[in-house]
Amino acid sequence: MLPDIEICRTTTLASISTIATQAGLLDTEFDTQGTYKAKVSLDCLKRLAPKKSGKLILVTAITPTPLGEGKTVTTIGLAQGLAKLNHMVTACIRQPSMGPVFGVKGGAAGGGYSQVAPMEELNLHLTGDIHAVTAAHNLAAAAIDARIYHEQRLGYDDFETRSGLTALKIDPTRVVWKRVMDHNDRALRMVTVGKNETGKTINGYEREDGFDISAASELMAILALANDLKDLRQRIGRIVVAYSYSGEPVTTEDLQVAGAMAVSMKEAIEPTLMQTLEGVPTLIHAGPFANIAHGNSSIIADNIALKLGDYTVTEGGFGSDMGFEKACNIKSQASGKAPDCAVIVATLRGLKANSGHYDLLPGQPIPDSLFANDHAALVAGFENLQWHINNVNKYGVPAVVAINRFPQDSEEELTQLKAMIEALPNNVLVAISEGFANGGNGTKELAEKVITQCEVSSTFTPLYTLNQTTEEKLMAVAEVGYGAGSVTLSDIAKQQLQQFKQQGFDDLAVCLAKTPLSISTDGSLKGAPKGFDVPIRELKLCAGAGFIYALCGNVMTMPGLPEKPAFMNLDLDDDGNIIGLS
Amino acid sequence: MLPDIEICRTTTLASISTIATQAGLLDTEFDTQGTYKAKVSLDCLKRLAPKKSGKLILVTAITPTPLGEGKTVTTIGLAQGLAKLNHMVTACIRQPSMGPVFGVKGGAAGGGYSQVAPMEELNLHLTGDIHAVTAAHNLAAAAIDARIYHEQRLGYDDFETRSGLTALKIDPTRVVWKRVMDHNDRALRMVTVGKNETGKTINGYEREDGFDISAASELMAILALANDLKDLRQRIGRIVVAYSYSGEPVTTEDLQVAGAMAVSMKEAIEPTLMQTLEGVPTLIHAGPFANIAHGNSSIIADNIALKLGDYTVTEGGFGSDMGFEKACNIKSQASGKAPDCAVIVATLRGLKANSGHYDLLPGQPIPDSLFANDHAALVAGFENLQWHINNVNKYGVPAVVAINRFPQDSEEELTQLKAMIEALPNNVLVAISEGFANGGNGTKELAEKVITQCEVSSTFTPLYTLNQTTEEKLMAVAEVGYGAGSVTLSDIAKQQLQQFKQQGFDDLAVCLAKTPLSISTDGSLKGAPKGFDVPIRELKLCAGAGFIYALCGNVMTMPGLPEKPAFMNLDLDDDGNIIGLS
Repeated sequence: MLPDIEICRTTTLASISTIATQAGLLDTEFDTQGTYKAKVSLDCLKRLAPKKSGKLILVTAITPTPLGEGKTVTTIGLAQGLAKLNHMVTACIRQPSMGPVFGVKGGAAGGGYSQVAPMEELNLHLTGDIHAVTAAHNLAAAAIDARIYHEQRLGYDDFETRSGLTALKIDPTRVVWKRVMDHNDRALRMVTVGKNETGKTINGYEREDGFDISAASELMAILALANDLKDLRQRIGRIVVAYSYSGEPVTTEDLQVAGAMAVSMKEAIEPTLMQTLEGVPTLIHAGPFANIAHGNSSIIADNIALKLGDYTVTEGGFGSDMGFEKACNIKSQASGKAPDCAVIVATLRGLKANSGHYDLLPGQPIPDSLFANDHAALVAGFENLQWHINNVNKYGVPAVVAINRFPQDSEEELTQLKAMIEALPNNVLVAISEGFANGGNGTKELAEKVITQCEVSSTFTPLYTLNQTTEEKLMAVAEVGYGAGSVTLSDIAKQQLQQFKQQGFDDLAVCLAKTPLSISTDGSLKGAPKGFDVPIRELKLCAGAGFIYALCGNVMTMPGLPEKPAFMNLDLDDDGNIIGLS
Repeated sequence: MLPDIEICRTTTLASISTIATQAGLLDTEFDTQGTYKAKVSLDCLKRLAPKKSGKLILVTAITPTPLGEGKTVTTIGLAQGLAKLNHMVTACIRQPSMGPVFGVKGGAAGGGYSQVAPMEELNLHLTGDIHAVTAAHNLAAAAIDARIYHEQRLGYDDFETRSGLTALKIDPTRVVWKRVMDHNDRALRMVTVGKNETGKTINGYEREDGFDISAASELMAILALANDLKDLRQRIGRIVVAYSYSGEPVTTEDLQVAGAMAVSMKEAIEPTLMQTLEGVPTLIHAGPFANIAHGNSSIIADNIALKLGDYTVTEGGFGSDMGFEKACNIKSQASGKAPDCAVIVATLRGLKANSGHYDLLPGQPIPDSLFANDHAALVAGFENLQWHINNVNKYGVPAVVAINRFPQDSEEELTQLKAMIEALPNNVLVAISEGFANGGNGTKELAEKVITQCEVSSTFTPLYTLNQTTEEKLMAVAEVGYGAGSVTLSDIAKQQLQQFKQQGFDDLAVCLAKTPLSISTDGSLKGAPKGFDVPIRELKLCAGAGFIYALCGNVMTMPGLPEKPAFMNLDLDDDGNIIGLS
């Protein structure tokens, strides 16, 4: 098979106007950005409001391994498969961050014959949404430090007299809004800002700060959860960026910067329309993390897609304990739309890796033994798949397992796995998915099974409702969701619970930030662990996004570059084409 | 008169496709980005190569005052005036930085009836070029810190064995590549990066660093000076980002990041086409500072404009000692195209402010007395205008003075000033320019005078040639250019001259980074100072941009936000329109 970028370059694509028109958009409802991208106006939602919404299919996966299970390939492949069956379908995916593109893994556009194209446009800048998030985020950060500087330099009274503003009296040690950058830059994780040459204070007041990667910005979660521009504006205004000396929360609205932030994100609220290699319309929008945020593409993109077609295929980050859980408990409660069917992506190698019998490291070559028949490993790893099937059913969402086939996979093991799934008591369906090698023709069986499950009448129930206490909501996700035996809150977390309650932040969703490498909070517990404890170290308020996230262990919000970063392969050839992107 | 944004919103604009087609571009030579912006492909240059180039008009000004002389208004107004006279004309301006838009001054799109429209699209994000510069710049910064980290963490030998790369042995105290952000954020001027929790080194190694505003990036100067994509790529590879422990320069090519940086700027190399309120095509491209860089729009935009029309109107930053000087000595030597005519913008209030009789501060209200007749102040300030006329003529470029009229201006003083200019021995022409109030109809006289001067046969000579020594080049600008009596190099600067020479960086242009508020390096010396000393504190190498810049005093490369920043006015109204941008 050709490399991804070659497949992409040798495929003839339609102009994005053609794709948009075929999808049912009017000329006035999209703005082309070059030949293959268009911004879709939210105006189309008004026109299409009377139309019946299509079915929402959420692609999730078994517990991820360093090998990659091919969730985006399956998402794009399934959308193409549904289109082969003559359905109107739209895929919705997250915008890839440029940090990892330059850092480790290259692009994130699917692969093989199930890609979003052109992949270089998807992976680099796209239509500037992440840059707009970065700009809006850092504007608030600059506003905080400038306000501290002027208030302290002039004294509160003088500041108020001169500016006509009310002093916010921000405690510089309690600024909770870091800066962001769309790069893997570990040197920025912990920085000191506001440093001065000796004896001067012209650069502000020194304080400890740090940078996250832009995808970790609360604004990215807000972009993904807002229902419209007004909602975006209001959510931005609710962000708590710091606390005053007296402990009062300081918001972007208090800083009078919320309006400017929304202005900066005015174009970012419009999803970007692209196409798959087989011409299936694909909306790319937002890219929140699936640990400290909810890890799903935007509500706005889904809403547009649901009105345009019979089927909308989208994906949640990591396994079903992560992106899928958050899609059900956070996203669905914000949008009012639950998934009609979940597709659980599993691979032979991924299941065997989940057995715990292999020691795999990111970036290291895959041991050949993983491709040999290993019944014991498959059976051990199968527990993990079974857990994810049960987990999906727990929410009342019907499931289809997509076995994403790799060329080295043994026919015998594939048959075995299929039989094991079919033998389960759940009403689960299974199909082998060959989207990578065969595009939509390789996923027709999967598409048919998905259509079947979409017809099962929904009994969707989230694990909690927003009016429960934060503690009850945390317990619901940990115990009912993960199957934990207990939840242990640290003293800090207990204090924070108290404080958030007092300050009126008790009607928010909860978002558990834990390792994706285990269903538990301990990455080394493979398979389907039970009875474990979920230790909650600290809580973080995202009042704008509408959730409190709970840190269960270390979560990296600013990756670093490896010894030999992916950027070393990138360059332009003599004709100005990008080389080295994969 | 209506506020700028209202004038802009109530003007009916043509679609950018219509503008592009009228300007002479083929459909395949531009990509629309929404209704009013288009990226112009450099491919058009090949097709248009046989066509005769038009005339290049460079708008400059007297020494700037806190009042603003209206250089962009005159640039856009003149382009509109030339169009009224039925000439094919294109304006070329720099992309406004978002920092000042949110910080102090609001937008930078001209004003009144001489604006580039839509002004909110020009001022916010545009087509993402500054974001691309920022991303490429910070990628190199991340690459530097990651390389230092991995080499020091593993030791040079282990690093080489593991990665297969050659250790660069970068001295962390000699990293000369800061980070950038497109915000006014004084707290980032001096930062410590690579900080760790006690006892750990997972975030790299601590070192002192800082952020500049993105416009101050060497990449911005490179974008403005590159002749094509290949030149851009090569210039990027020549950037010196650090020195090794043994004092050897380390380039982006050494870091193997130059290719990825060029990839990140692949779309940024295409100028953005917009239009003025009267439908004159306007190319917006690059926005380098006019002190530490050369302060002019791009060579590529000029080259396209020169092929499209009879006249290209562009502007240089600050007074003719700054942007114009650098356009002649740096830009023209890189492009091979000299200005055919210079327009010197002067205002009554600006000339009187240049008398030194008034004490004006940025952001403070203008004293009424400045608008009363004040012959003495006008005569004193006139020396400054005369200096700029002589300065322009020094390069063999014919000049037209554009008196940019303000509503409060006295008819008597305008007549007086016009007569004073007409009485000069230089072959200088003068016209009152009313672009702000009347658009192209207010600049027809100016346009006619400009056309006359464009017919004068060129005797253009830069002040130096690149094969002179760096010291000779510095002397030429200071003594022949500014009329300084002497140049004093600090010990550091002398050492650096020596070092750059040894390392082969002796064929570069020079760029004096000095205050724009005086012709000298002392901002308090108003009018036309003579015999002053030019002290050169330090030299900075921009091997990619192709110049060495000389710091003559403090130059601020990261602005700060004022007590009451412009962002406080910005918001979205109920219909999602931007309010508060001016």
